[in-house]
Amino acid sequence: MGTASLTRRVAFSAAHRYSRPEWTEEKNRATFGPCSLPNFHGHNYVCTVTVSGPIDEKTGFVANLGEIDRALDSEVMARFDHRNINLEVPEFGDGKMIPSGENLARFIFEKLQAKLGAKVTVTRVMIAEDETLSATYEK
Amino acid sequence: MGTASLTRRVAFSAAHRYSRPEWTEEKNRATFGPCSLPNFHGHNYVCTVTVSGPIDEKTGFVANLGEIDRALDSEVMARFDHRNINLEVPEFGDGKMIPSGENLARFIFEKLQAKLGAKVTVTRVMIAEDETLSATYEK
Amino acid sequence: MGTASLTRRVAFSAAHRYSRPEWTEEKNRATFGPCSLPNFHGHNYVCTVTVSGPIDEKTGFVANLGEIDRALDSEVMARFDHRNINLEVPEFGDGKMIPSGENLARFIFEKLQAKLGAKVTVTRVMIAEDETLSATYEK
Amino acid sequence: MGTASLTRRVAFSAAHRYSRPEWTEEKNRATFGPCSLPNFHGHNYVCTVTVSGPIDEKTGFVANLGEIDRALDSEVMARFDHRNINLEVPEFGDGKMIPSGENLARFIFEKLQAKLGAKVTVTRVMIAEDETLSATYEK
Amino acid sequence: MGTASLTRRVAFSAAHRYSRPEWTEEKNRATFGPCSLPNFHGHNYVCTVTVSGPIDEKTGFVANLGEIDRALDSEVMARFDHRNINLEVPEFGDGKMIPSGENLARFIFEKLQAKLGAKVTVTRVMIAEDETLSATYEK
Amino acid sequence: MGTASLTRRVAFSAAHRYSRPEWTEEKNRATFGPCSLPNFHGHNYVCTVTVSGPIDEKTGFVANLGEIDRALDSEVMARFDHRNINLEVPEFGDGKMIPSGENLARFIFEKLQAKLGAKVTVTRVMIAEDETLSATYEK
Repeated sequence: MGTASLTRRVAFSAAHRYSRPEWTEEKNRATFGPCSLPNFHGHNYVCTVTVSGPIDEKTGFVANLGEIDRALDSEVMARFDHRNINLEVPEFGDGKMIPSGENLARFIFEKLQAKLGAKVTVTRVMIAEDETLSATYEK
Repeated sequence: MGTASLTRRVAFSAAHRYSRPEWTEEKNRATFGPCSLPNFHGHNYVCTVTVSGPIDEKTGFVANLGEIDRALDSEVMARFDHRNINLEVPEFGDGKMIPSGENLARFIFEKLQAKLGAKVTVTRVMIAEDETLSATYEK
Repeated sequence: MGTASLTRRVAFSAAHRYSRPEWTEEKNRATFGPCSLPNFHGHNYVCTVTVSGPIDEKTGFVANLGEIDRALDSEVMARFDHRNINLEVPEFGDGKMIPSGENLARFIFEKLQAKLGAKVTVTRVMIAEDETLSATYEK
Repeated sequence: MGTASLTRRVAFSAAHRYSRPEWTEEKNRATFGPCSLPNFHGHNYVCTVTVSGPIDEKTGFVANLGEIDRALDSEVMARFDHRNINLEVPEFGDGKMIPSGENLARFIFEKLQAKLGAKVTVTRVMIAEDETLSATYEK
Repeated sequence: MGTASLTRRVAFSAAHRYSRPEWTEEKNRATFGPCSLPNFHGHNYVCTVTVSGPIDEKTGFVANLGEIDRALDSEVMARFDHRNINLEVPEFGDGKMIPSGENLARFIFEKLQAKLGAKVTVTRVMIAEDETLSATYEK
Repeated sequence: MGTASLTRRVAFSAAHRYSRPEWTEEKNRATFGPCSLPNFHGHNYVCTVTVSGPIDEKTGFVANLGEIDRALDSEVMARFDHRNINLEVPEFGDGKMIPSGENLARFIFEKLQAKLGAKVTVTRVMIAEDETLSATYEK
């Protein structure tokens, strides 16, 4: 017996920078490279969410796609699209989480699972900053 | 010790619709959205199959690619390419399985495994309807 | 002095077939190959429209993107997405235009130009059936 | 006789916003939509430059690729990558050019042609903000 | 009145190197960089051909796709796929044309036009070595 | 609790052929098809490496990207880019490992893990020869 899953992809544009206020500028630059530059830069982020479960015999679905899309709208698009992650998403504010791909993937994983509730099982969230770099958080 | 696998991708164009004849048109529309429209629509499906196993010391292969390609030709391309899945693939006919990505992935997984026999282990089939949506069936 | 243009891409899923009712089945099959099969097949079409003109000094735009998007919604998406082109778009009905990429590109070019009016100049429409085949209509 | 050209692509990540300081916030919002939000957002820009000319009989090249790449480094990457276009590229500062794709394409076209000098002819620069939107400036 | 065209893409894998036997190794290295290394390297080339002409009223085509595909098979795939361009395509042999993208595009343009004859007009051939570099030969 | 990972992609161009010197030409051709042709062919290989581990609370990273990139430079790019794998990478020389995707993935997995040392855990290496074929080696 195998396992079925459904994977949905959305994209958003956002600005960010990596900086720890408790560190010197030198340490920030050494750790984060050009990602520490003060005026922000940005990406077209690609966010891919996978949900798993048994295939419903009637619908052929492991999850209702409309419900997934509504969760992606409220938890991902409304929060991040055309936003500055450091300035506008409180959990990633100064001195809190660095908006790395890894932290974004874990944060979005938890927000989506909370929104979707017990009947849908989120098994993976992937955040790609560009074609060459992505981070994944998975069960 | 790790695990090796080989992944092959093919693409096919097909028409489909989602509809349960025992449901009212309203329930079909509420459940399946525009996918329930009566005259069919279509996709360039991308089908990705992964087979796993030890790497042969002589050939460097986990499976013979020609054999995989022949199985993809007979089990996937001959069945689905330039076809109407609802009307021409009996298992997805009226009142039977909805041709969702999940059902297609499981169906193709089982057909490929049966065709390839015991010496090749199919571990995953992924069916993408478009760049934003895919379903996976895996061991 | 150069020329500026803006290019916008949308995608839609539709079913179609190629068949001339005044021809024999043999001639249809010889001319159109598997595209002539009776039960339709489908594609994720990619439609790319280019509009050209001077760059507005204030906005930096050659055209208002919102206006382009509304024209793409009414002229392309509403007409073709999740539709059967032969059965649901009258100009491509039985005995009329074959829904080839070339005819779709010209048809959409003319519909978009008519909708956008004199102040926006459509210069190119490209319709791709898949990653290997596209048709372009351009001024 | 035909014409030969060479096309090179680079990508950069940058933050930007669209806003005219002499306009009200309402007018900015109505004209630029979410692109007018105050805290910037960002993109992975793709910049594609085309240069044309006769094919050198000895090298088989219309231009020296190393020279093109050095011009892209100094004129595009050094100026824009990991930068805030509004705050860090003077020509796109407050009250000057809006950093639209059209203005970026024209600006980069002119900078590249100036850098490359008379022996290389730049014929087109394309700036894509994402997979669905690009602007082109061409001779 | 506009112009219609059809664009078809194929891909082939080939090995090549850039070297002029009448030059010193130093000059070859300075001119061609790592492309001059003696043992060859390789690419998945993408070859895109565009043909133009009036749209046939009956078929909706500017050209017969089967005929284009046969020409691509004999003139492009049979010549280049899984081949060493320097050693196996005589026109690119030692001391003759360097197998640059520009030379390949012009060569393939001429071969395709000769094969297709007067009733099909080839207007552009594009050869991409990878996602960042392509050469185009066009009328 | 979930697992975090970081995935980085690089690309290299190389020539190769598949051939076992202890086999007849007929057996090589039957087993390896056109990949056994004597003069080599080539690919733009895409190499994707995944490393896993806990997310550092300060940096938000599972691994230092600069360190990953340096390992990819020394273990992958320096060894394979613009090279002939059979002639220039000793482990894939005549009579040794066939440079199949599976063998390349396992070889690169082991080289990267050895280079990165105990504090970074490589969990997967994927080698794609083209858009339709890849091999993966994973823990």
